Amino acid sequence: WQVVVREGIPQLERTFRFPNFREALAFTLQVGELAEAEGHHPVLITRWGSVTVIWWTHKIRGLHRNDFIMAAKTDALFSRRSGGS
Amino acid sequence: WQVVVREGIPQLERTFRFPNFREALAFTLQVGELAEAEGHHPVLITRWGSVTVIWWTHKIRGLHRNDFIMAAKTDALFSRRSGGS
Repeated sequence: WQVVVREGIPQLERTFRFPNFREALAFTLQVGELAEAEGHHPVLITRWGSVTVIWWTHKIRGLHRNDFIMAAKTDALFSRRSGGS
Repeated sequence: WQVVVREGIPQLERTFRFPNFREALAFTLQVGELAEAEGHHPVLITRWGSVTVIWWTHKIRGLHRNDFIMAAKTDALFSRRSGGS
């Protein structure tokens, strides 16, 4: 994960790679369902072969402990899919 | 739809609005399934309350007639969901 600052707001960002569009889309759906379950919503950029996940906390215009937890949970979803990290 | 030029590549872009994250995610999935069915893949940016869809043709680094057809099909999916446009 990288911290990227956009319009003054620090955000946690990581791009996950996939061999095609379908697997990228499936991961987007998985992260989206995690987001709904936790009530905390990222930006998800789905492309052929990759998904970029961006976490931050709107209310504080920055990073909260919860964003790091969500990043770790996102990694766990990815590891379970691919068997790697 | 707007034509946005990124790194010299003209792209068709439209942002669709939704009342929450779940409906945005569902639309992402619908457009993604359309993309798989047609063998032509956009970039999909899913946020709480919106999905931005970006079409262009990688091979020609620009817009092909097919991109406009995919944009129209995306609109049709949205209209069917919401009853509006």
